[in-house]
Amino acid sequence: MPQSPIRKLVPYAENAKKRGIKVYHLNIGQPDIKTPQVALDAVKNNTLDVIAYSRSEGSETYRAKLANYYAKNDIIVNHDDIIVTTGGSEALLFTFGSIMDAGDEVIIPEPFYANYNGFSTASGVKVVPVVSKIENNFALPPIEAFEKLISPKTKAILICNPGNPTGYLYSKEEIQKLSAIVKKHDLFLVADEVYREFAYDGQEHYSVMQEDGLEEHAIMIDSVSKRYSMCGARIGCIVTKNKDVIATALKFAQARLSPPTYAQLASEAALETPQHYFDEVIDEYVARRNVLIEKLNEIDGVKVAKPKGAFYCIAELPVDNADDFAQWLLEKFDLNGETVMVAPAAGFYSSEGLGLNQVRIAYVLNKADLVRSVNILKEALNQYKG
Amino acid sequence: MPQSPIRKLVPYAENAKKRGIKVYHLNIGQPDIKTPQVALDAVKNNTLDVIAYSRSEGSETYRAKLANYYAKNDIIVNHDDIIVTTGGSEALLFTFGSIMDAGDEVIIPEPFYANYNGFSTASGVKVVPVVSKIENNFALPPIEAFEKLISPKTKAILICNPGNPTGYLYSKEEIQKLSAIVKKHDLFLVADEVYREFAYDGQEHYSVMQEDGLEEHAIMIDSVSKRYSMCGARIGCIVTKNKDVIATALKFAQARLSPPTYAQLASEAALETPQHYFDEVIDEYVARRNVLIEKLNEIDGVKVAKPKGAFYCIAELPVDNADDFAQWLLEKFDLNGETVMVAPAAGFYSSEGLGLNQVRIAYVLNKADLVRSVNILKEALNQYKG
Repeated sequence: MPQSPIRKLVPYAENAKKRGIKVYHLNIGQPDIKTPQVALDAVKNNTLDVIAYSRSEGSETYRAKLANYYAKNDIIVNHDDIIVTTGGSEALLFTFGSIMDAGDEVIIPEPFYANYNGFSTASGVKVVPVVSKIENNFALPPIEAFEKLISPKTKAILICNPGNPTGYLYSKEEIQKLSAIVKKHDLFLVADEVYREFAYDGQEHYSVMQEDGLEEHAIMIDSVSKRYSMCGARIGCIVTKNKDVIATALKFAQARLSPPTYAQLASEAALETPQHYFDEVIDEYVARRNVLIEKLNEIDGVKVAKPKGAFYCIAELPVDNADDFAQWLLEKFDLNGETVMVAPAAGFYSSEGLGLNQVRIAYVLNKADLVRSVNILKEALNQYKG
Repeated sequence: MPQSPIRKLVPYAENAKKRGIKVYHLNIGQPDIKTPQVALDAVKNNTLDVIAYSRSEGSETYRAKLANYYAKNDIIVNHDDIIVTTGGSEALLFTFGSIMDAGDEVIIPEPFYANYNGFSTASGVKVVPVVSKIENNFALPPIEAFEKLISPKTKAILICNPGNPTGYLYSKEEIQKLSAIVKKHDLFLVADEVYREFAYDGQEHYSVMQEDGLEEHAIMIDSVSKRYSMCGARIGCIVTKNKDVIATALKFAQARLSPPTYAQLASEAALETPQHYFDEVIDEYVARRNVLIEKLNEIDGVKVAKPKGAFYCIAELPVDNADDFAQWLLEKFDLNGETVMVAPAAGFYSSEGLGLNQVRIAYVLNKADLVRSVNILKEALNQYKG
């Protein structure tokens, strides 16, 4: 089982805190945004007196309301096209287990969400990476690059849209290119769309579920974690029109009995979140992104891809090994008693040797803290080089 | 992925209900017992305004209090011997993934909790069954039977104590026999002890964690589901003194980020449940068991093992195929508009052809409903034979 790259520096951060150093966490996707009141209230006002199993596929009412939410997002599905899972993590694990056998292959543009490695290992599946580049803002690699990697063992292409860790938002045209190739080779197109709402600069998110003729191939992974700042609820889902996938995923769901009951209450209520909540959140993230990218670009030798969605960016730093640098930031450096924690990007690549001088930065801190963090990073880079 | 035998009759039960038939559910382990008020209140009175990730291994305070709870049960562990999981299900899945590779084998006395099959399949691991018999109340099979099955691929022996579906409570002597054999062959002894409190007739539960010298071999699986009637919370844990197992299981835990936050609040508070809650619950289950066993024994041709723990029993029925009979109960039979749903026991066996005339009955209904259910079963058996 591979070590999560986001977590491996945790002991160094804990030691830094013990030494009295304030650590700004640019390394994790835990937003500081308040959970919608309507979701918090649903749990506080619940009247359950037996915390019983729910249905393995998730409560009937929640799935029905979810289908309505998707319809508003131009994704037309029924409640029985949905299996509620314990977070997007479990949705990925069930999907891998349902569509692949041990030894099968899934093609994923890299850098990718590092835990895809863990779920692959747990399912005995091999990740075949296709490189996307910082120079192109991590756009979809040429479709020929995918084509070259397809083998008899290839069962699926997996994308994250908008992307963690890249912040890249795939265009409709890019989704259609992927759609064509999965139809041609009879593969699944699995799309992790948990950041759907986080699309910036007037761009629209285009889901694999919107693509005509892709019904048997498209599997959408979703989660309430980021949408409603409810990471700890642990509710996600699998959405697909493919009945065989639903039937197999249901067996996985039944084996683990049910998704968490309280969290389903919160998630169902969260669907009533007023639009102004999202407007404010998106405004806030755009402002954070802008200040972060502007400040990072002011540092000599730093190259950064401008994210169009989610709340991450990949930055290339003027260091040989971002892993060592990230550890040094926590072990040896502080600026007036403060330092930053970043996620070394090599763990988001599957190809050995890629991303060694890159880090992922999550802009989940307020603007003032982000500015402060980038100043710390700048001074650290000065001293590290010198 | 194998189908859960407990779930496969669900569509028939739903159809029966649509026809206006009342169905008594003897098939599932969802207790009707109220969750402790202290746990319900902890959630209702929570003051969280961001439902954030917890630590992947579970919150520090919860694990510390869990260690205290175990100490009261003569199980001496530290908080860092514990990884909090999303239900006992995930604890089993992480354990299988941590101690076995694809193709490895785990020996399990059958009949066993059917979802062990699902977790084995998901982990690519092979279940090797060793038969326990209704004639012996499903006591531990002779240790020689285990010995014969041990191969170079064997990595663990898994028991459920007290047993689901058997209700059997292993004695200290039986645990010590298992302890000797796992030490001799350097295997793990995994014990699913989620029914620890449900030990009847003055018998004491003896944990694998109490056995001296077994520290590197013993892994305990636990859950709040049955103890506090909080099945829907989805909180369990892995407990072991083996640091390598903890380190590997932590990687699985990190890949799925965290166990559910609300449910951890409930579970931490549940540790303050007053003793009289358990006393009342145990009294209730003993009374239910007694009336159930007495009534079942009054039916011609029914043989039943008397359970010493948990809240299940296996009953042998005078039918050729309990699967067909269970379906018939839901599709073709009613007594004054009522019928019963039972879990055919074949799904709890791994050996083909065993348990075909057995069912698992969960005594999670009140006494009056249990009596009524057994009367329905008796009349059904009359008609089914005739």
